[in-house]
Amino acid sequence: MEFNYADRVLQMDASDIRKLMKIITDPNMISFGAGSPAKNLFPIDELKNANDLVYKDNVLGAFQYSNSEGYVPLREWIVERHNHTNRTMLRKENVLITNGSQQGLDFVGKIFLNKGDIVLCENPTYASALSAFRSYECEFQGITIDDEGMVLSEVKDLIAKHDNIKFIYIIPNHQNPTGTTWSLKRRKALAEIAKKNRIIIIEDDPYRELSFDGSYLPSVSQFDNCNYVITLGSFSKALCPGLRVGWILANEEIISKLIYAKQATDLQTNEIVQRQIYNYLNMYNYDEHLSIIRKQYKKRCDTACEIASEFFPQVVNFIKPTGGFFLWLNLPNHIDTKDLLPIAIKRGVAYVPGYSFYPDKSIHNNIRLNYSSVAEEDLIHGIKVLGSVIKEVCD
Amino acid sequence: MEFNYADRVLQMDASDIRKLMKIITDPNMISFGAGSPAKNLFPIDELKNANDLVYKDNVLGAFQYSNSEGYVPLREWIVERHNHTNRTMLRKENVLITNGSQQGLDFVGKIFLNKGDIVLCENPTYASALSAFRSYECEFQGITIDDEGMVLSEVKDLIAKHDNIKFIYIIPNHQNPTGTTWSLKRRKALAEIAKKNRIIIIEDDPYRELSFDGSYLPSVSQFDNCNYVITLGSFSKALCPGLRVGWILANEEIISKLIYAKQATDLQTNEIVQRQIYNYLNMYNYDEHLSIIRKQYKKRCDTACEIASEFFPQVVNFIKPTGGFFLWLNLPNHIDTKDLLPIAIKRGVAYVPGYSFYPDKSIHNNIRLNYSSVAEEDLIHGIKVLGSVIKEVCD
Repeated sequence: MEFNYADRVLQMDASDIRKLMKIITDPNMISFGAGSPAKNLFPIDELKNANDLVYKDNVLGAFQYSNSEGYVPLREWIVERHNHTNRTMLRKENVLITNGSQQGLDFVGKIFLNKGDIVLCENPTYASALSAFRSYECEFQGITIDDEGMVLSEVKDLIAKHDNIKFIYIIPNHQNPTGTTWSLKRRKALAEIAKKNRIIIIEDDPYRELSFDGSYLPSVSQFDNCNYVITLGSFSKALCPGLRVGWILANEEIISKLIYAKQATDLQTNEIVQRQIYNYLNMYNYDEHLSIIRKQYKKRCDTACEIASEFFPQVVNFIKPTGGFFLWLNLPNHIDTKDLLPIAIKRGVAYVPGYSFYPDKSIHNNIRLNYSSVAEEDLIHGIKVLGSVIKEVCD
Repeated sequence: MEFNYADRVLQMDASDIRKLMKIITDPNMISFGAGSPAKNLFPIDELKNANDLVYKDNVLGAFQYSNSEGYVPLREWIVERHNHTNRTMLRKENVLITNGSQQGLDFVGKIFLNKGDIVLCENPTYASALSAFRSYECEFQGITIDDEGMVLSEVKDLIAKHDNIKFIYIIPNHQNPTGTTWSLKRRKALAEIAKKNRIIIIEDDPYRELSFDGSYLPSVSQFDNCNYVITLGSFSKALCPGLRVGWILANEEIISKLIYAKQATDLQTNEIVQRQIYNYLNMYNYDEHLSIIRKQYKKRCDTACEIASEFFPQVVNFIKPTGGFFLWLNLPNHIDTKDLLPIAIKRGVAYVPGYSFYPDKSIHNNIRLNYSSVAEEDLIHGIKVLGSVIKEVCD
């Protein structure tokens, strides 16, 4: 059959990660491919109790159509925590609840991007953000990242050259895929660029709570109190992704447009689940939970780095992460990690080739290795196997 | 602040219904404004038990990132029921789970509509479908509806005149807002027009299970086994809206594009809730539940029609519905029901003025009166009050 699709469909494709979903979820495969938290760290019993309370309260309104902005007490909790860990003065009117932060990415694309508009992003960056924005037929300019974040001279040059840069998309903490955390200085400087040029910053911050040492650098939104900075957050990494609850923090005027997008897209996020999360946050010590999972992720990361240092050939290098879920491997330039993948899969190990994370897919010698969702013994065995596969092609 | 939004934002606005949300949910107001099912008919205890089972099964995968298509057993249940009540031969590959059918509307807009493309729709039609499609900067042509559905000669004339009609949007059963149910003949004829002209039909069917007598006419998809016909369904009206679970039935090729849209938009629908619904459908007798709620809705509709006949002035006319949630009132041409609304609200009664349901908002003398979510005594009192308000302006 031939159907007459919209032009944007030509740019849409299954994400490489989602294409690998069958392999990633195959229990016989050691998969470094997911961007997932560890299942065994989900506070299932606590979530169950929090959910029971929603049913016990028997608030029928939670089961009915309700408001598009989200459950008020949860929105209040989110701004309070943001204000507490950043010097912002946000109110519940600055929050919209979304189905995970992925929906936030769709919405900012929807309200800001005309066909042909330019999005500046880290090079490489989160692949599914590229998919979300691509639906609105934008163009990307990837900006080099060093160990402090984006190289801002490149940003300034591009702003001087183009008048249709709609926003700058960044992941300031434990970036997906590279693990980079922006320095304080760079965050501040970016906020200034945004303000001066009236360009929006999309600060995607799902790994904020997942520094191994529990430390926080200020959100970029701190430097302009969510005027030009829009911050996306999520419970997916710290609680569990299956709940599908995230949020957008933004200027009230922008939130009003995002609410139109929410209404047109799916009316509202499940309020039963929003109440469940709110109950959980009230019934249990969230910071204690975070401290437990941080320790576990640090442990997995330490193991991954240790085994990788021992079993990967010298030509492979990586920077040890300070939080988040990923090791970003640099292989020699002549290696295409896409070609390596079928060999690794044959030996029972999967990963996502790095080219997926570059908007122009032009760099081929990286591997994103997710350690957060892989059990200790699989981590050790899988990295050894991967090391042997890499060795063979490098020799 | 002045932000540089996408052009489509100019066409976006809060839906008139959502704008009334505060009034609609004010417990001191008798509201005929919602499009909601009756809260007291939600099978909360059964849903609780079905949910407990998800936690008891402790399938951690339900709490993790999972596939974008949706939970396989639920998809299988949906196609089986559709095949059973229609002569279709669909498979699970023809189903995508969405966050209510509203998200299905967004997705078909996303994959089919270029700026300036034409959507044919019933005149009037579901206002939030207009919002969903408007996000993709399409144009609308409203088609007259008589008591059998769209007047198809108008459809044919427009197809002959325009080469950028992307799809025809219809609500074949107990239409929102008019209550119209399409005749068998008209359904078949529309499917033929679609096939002949290779134009997609979007069949939005949330009220399918809500004929008062439990009868079904074939889905339009029966006449081409979901090739050019895309059918949207939902658990929102028959179970409860708070779950936010609906579905799209379509040709596999189209489903593959819709999956890209799902991945780019929000990755996946909450699988915990999908499993909860599947458990509910297995643990309880869904048809018995439907039969109970149909009786209740019929009762409310009977009351509404009876009181309206008695207390509305003769110049107001309406057709008695055979299912669904709404009475569609025709007032004399010179009455603008938007102007009437503040008077009604002052006396404690709210409704949605009919102009919101016309794509060009050009017709002003209708009221959509929702009876499904209003308790018997409020229904009686509210209609009497509304009758007196109408009388005053008609006299």
